[in-house]
Amino acid sequence: MEALEQRILKEGQYLGNGILKVDSFINHQVDPLLMDACGREFARLFGGVGATKILTAEISGIAPALTTAIHLGLPVVYARKTKPITMPDQVYLTLAPSHTKGRMVELIVSPEHLGGGEKVLIIDDFLATGATILGLVRLTQTAGSTVVGIGTLIEKTFEGGRRALEHLGVPVFSLARIVELNEEKIVFA
Amino acid sequence: MEALEQRILKEGQYLGNGILKVDSFINHQVDPLLMDACGREFARLFGGVGATKILTAEISGIAPALTTAIHLGLPVVYARKTKPITMPDQVYLTLAPSHTKGRMVELIVSPEHLGGGEKVLIIDDFLATGATILGLVRLTQTAGSTVVGIGTLIEKTFEGGRRALEHLGVPVFSLARIVELNEEKIVFA
Repeated sequence: MEALEQRILKEGQYLGNGILKVDSFINHQVDPLLMDACGREFARLFGGVGATKILTAEISGIAPALTTAIHLGLPVVYARKTKPITMPDQVYLTLAPSHTKGRMVELIVSPEHLGGGEKVLIIDDFLATGATILGLVRLTQTAGSTVVGIGTLIEKTFEGGRRALEHLGVPVFSLARIVELNEEKIVFA
Repeated sequence: MEALEQRILKEGQYLGNGILKVDSFINHQVDPLLMDACGREFARLFGGVGATKILTAEISGIAPALTTAIHLGLPVVYARKTKPITMPDQVYLTLAPSHTKGRMVELIVSPEHLGGGEKVLIIDDFLATGATILGLVRLTQTAGSTVVGIGTLIEKTFEGGRRALEHLGVPVFSLARIVELNEEKIVFA
């Protein structure tokens, strides 16, 4: 998506270790009109997959998942990383490594809001190794539901995430696909 | 707001200790169309306060703050509760007690995205004691900016938050004001 790529080129900062800082429009400050445009684009791309629910992971996935949900008119569930006291004792929980945190994090969904028989569209901010998204896939499958599509704002193609998701046989779309990332330049596919 | 009140009556669950569970449409699963309607209502209520930026706290504040930001066309910043590695070493940090977590949590904003001279509209999910919102007020003032309005989805009037915010002399709007909450009933103002 041209607008997202241009914004990454203008404001994205490479911090080393494969980390792209996009705090000025996605991860700390959010540009709501850009995010709305991304949600509209996801709605267009996944309009035909028959999704009944959108699933994301707190925190940074919430914004793009919500705007996609607005445009598709579907409920969105965000997996929690700590279990709030409002959740029942029995939950679906999986572990996923966090690249930016350098440790494993929990992904928790309540059976109240992810049951069986749902067709789940997963939306997140980044596709890197695919570890977080595979965690969301496991939660979906454990709940007895099916993943029907995966969308991310930014993909770092050189971290292998797309390959790790291939076996699912569902459409995977990223709105900006970075094939090269270093101090000097950001190159899109 | 009628639609929000009706939804609270239909799906809100009182868990004791003043805690209202609204996990099916705000805090874990989000109803995007209701949230969009709430954002539109905040935009109408705060259209005249001259805000230049919206500030909220992760995680549950993100959805209503984002939809308000879409309707006002303003950037939104969400205060982080843990400092991500993408943030600079020098940040604005304050502590606020979390009712649902039973401990103090950090609220952190990067000076890159909350500088001086901004007119800040604070949006959050709940107004209870006002402790989280007062934390966001302190961050705003420390950054050299001014709070021009405060909006929350749900206010529990009996916890005193509105009184705690009075000295700021800015408009405070809540879309659903609960005056009585117990096992038997939820009563709106």
